[in-house]
Amino acid sequence: MPSSKKVNKRVLVTGGCGFLGSQLCDQLLARPDLELLICVDNLWTGRKENVAHIRDPRFKKVFCGVEDFRSDHRFDEVFHLASPASPPWYMREPARTISANIVGAMRTLELLEDGGRFCYTSTSEVYGEPEVSPQPESYRGAVDCTGPRSSYDEAKRVTESLLFETRRTRGLELRVARLFNTFGPRMRADDGRAISNFIVQALMGGPVRVQGDGSQSRSWGYVSDVIEGLSRYFWRDTFAYDGPLNIGNDREVTVLDVATYVAELVGGREIVFEAPMPHDPTHRCPDLTMARRVLPGWTCEVPYEEGVRLTVEWMKQELSDPARSARVAGASGVAG
Amino acid sequence: MPSSKKVNKRVLVTGGCGFLGSQLCDQLLARPDLELLICVDNLWTGRKENVAHIRDPRFKKVFCGVEDFRSDHRFDEVFHLASPASPPWYMREPARTISANIVGAMRTLELLEDGGRFCYTSTSEVYGEPEVSPQPESYRGAVDCTGPRSSYDEAKRVTESLLFETRRTRGLELRVARLFNTFGPRMRADDGRAISNFIVQALMGGPVRVQGDGSQSRSWGYVSDVIEGLSRYFWRDTFAYDGPLNIGNDREVTVLDVATYVAELVGGREIVFEAPMPHDPTHRCPDLTMARRVLPGWTCEVPYEEGVRLTVEWMKQELSDPARSARVAGASGVAG
Repeated sequence: MPSSKKVNKRVLVTGGCGFLGSQLCDQLLARPDLELLICVDNLWTGRKENVAHIRDPRFKKVFCGVEDFRSDHRFDEVFHLASPASPPWYMREPARTISANIVGAMRTLELLEDGGRFCYTSTSEVYGEPEVSPQPESYRGAVDCTGPRSSYDEAKRVTESLLFETRRTRGLELRVARLFNTFGPRMRADDGRAISNFIVQALMGGPVRVQGDGSQSRSWGYVSDVIEGLSRYFWRDTFAYDGPLNIGNDREVTVLDVATYVAELVGGREIVFEAPMPHDPTHRCPDLTMARRVLPGWTCEVPYEEGVRLTVEWMKQELSDPARSARVAGASGVAG
Repeated sequence: MPSSKKVNKRVLVTGGCGFLGSQLCDQLLARPDLELLICVDNLWTGRKENVAHIRDPRFKKVFCGVEDFRSDHRFDEVFHLASPASPPWYMREPARTISANIVGAMRTLELLEDGGRFCYTSTSEVYGEPEVSPQPESYRGAVDCTGPRSSYDEAKRVTESLLFETRRTRGLELRVARLFNTFGPRMRADDGRAISNFIVQALMGGPVRVQGDGSQSRSWGYVSDVIEGLSRYFWRDTFAYDGPLNIGNDREVTVLDVATYVAELVGGREIVFEAPMPHDPTHRCPDLTMARRVLPGWTCEVPYEEGVRLTVEWMKQELSDPARSARVAGASGVAG
């Protein structure tokens, strides 16, 4: 809960219909000090279904790109999440990805009330193909700024720069969280990343398709744990460390282990191997030293096995809608 | 000279009133196939004086930020140079620096004729504090994306990403040049970088002020050599290497050596040492292997000693204008 005194807060969430954004909106609406929550989303990767359950009169949806969002309000809190996060999505539309992040940040900074607080969801991808493991926040990264994953990685990096430099030159209450791989309910069935792909492929009866040899590792954080860490970070008023802050699960699991687990859980699915994604990082694991210092008591509590089970249950319901199931079957994410 | 067949070319140069941009405009106007050259500049670091000598009727100046530039024309060639390049300038206005580069590139891409050619002047600063020397184009760099120099470095990196990804997804004739330190006539007296600072300080009778201990090295390219390399790169029609391309001088000289040379050249100036710039790279040297392959015969011909002499002569004339001299004396670049 926020410790700041002001009540009747106006809050803006960009990407509020997304996988993470919608769960953040749910959590924000539990706050008694909130007067207005505007969710901006252009439904590129976000979905109306993710917020369809919200009946709270303080909640307003605006369906447009964050770059085009105009408002008579200024906001006490801005959460800038608008961005695709999955390689097939951002690699298809790199210019749009860059714009959502950096132009979106420029736009929403203008809408922040003086003394307001700004939260940006950056990414472990700022570390690129890391030469150190686990990755501390001080690691400068190894991103190929001309490569096929660069739009996302560099958009996140330059947006961090804008925000930290705005703080240095003009002052800004800033929370930049570098989120590591996150999964769970409300991921798109056609998201295109490993866990959701494997689950959808298994549920639809096909083989589970591993890109590369599956030895690449990720640190899979379940969505409720990640949202909890993000929220605690945002609402802590003072701490000695200025950010950015790694948030994620530091249990590293290979992609092949996840595929095997999903194939067995759903029951007897074959695993097949396909061409690797270009520039796919071979490993990824957060150094959580700073997170433990800044967020005492917070930790990722949901093991990936349980998270996968919960996601399988949710995805079953998603796919039980015949129209959606047909769309998913045709999408590239499931094919590859 | 361009080998492409079309005559009556329309060309856009952003930052055309700047140190490099204005010298590029001079060179472009020597081309017989040029119908129109529009120079866009908001005079942030560019100066009207740099293009005041141009009387060519094909040359048009538009004084506005590149983000706001509108035109009924589409352009066969775009040279996007608009950006401050000196730390004191971009550190004062980081948001504006980021916008000039990335939003400027988004804007000018829209103005490029189908099949047109786009040139972007990136920088050796994409390498940050380099762990390898000399730096080849394949080196991914070590930039602190939250640090006080990041607005420039990350703006250049994300703009490279936008351009390379636009080429990958939509096709684009692209020339990205990573320029190393460049100096010469038309640098601002209050530019704030070492060579111009030292020259102005010496000419105004004061001591030459070295930031840090002066052991940091740079590879100083004289402006005519750099513009020649940039032009040759732009006008080469085909080569096997897709860029980006390092352009600069690979003779590494320490800042203290330059200070000593300037102090002696102007005559008997004292050298004093001051606090270092934050995050000042300790060394910087281009690996020119690819440049020699792509631009056979091109090399930096002007040694820095001769370049410094030419720049001293030019700066003497600049400072002979009493009004300008008074402005320069008051500017931070000369004080520090």
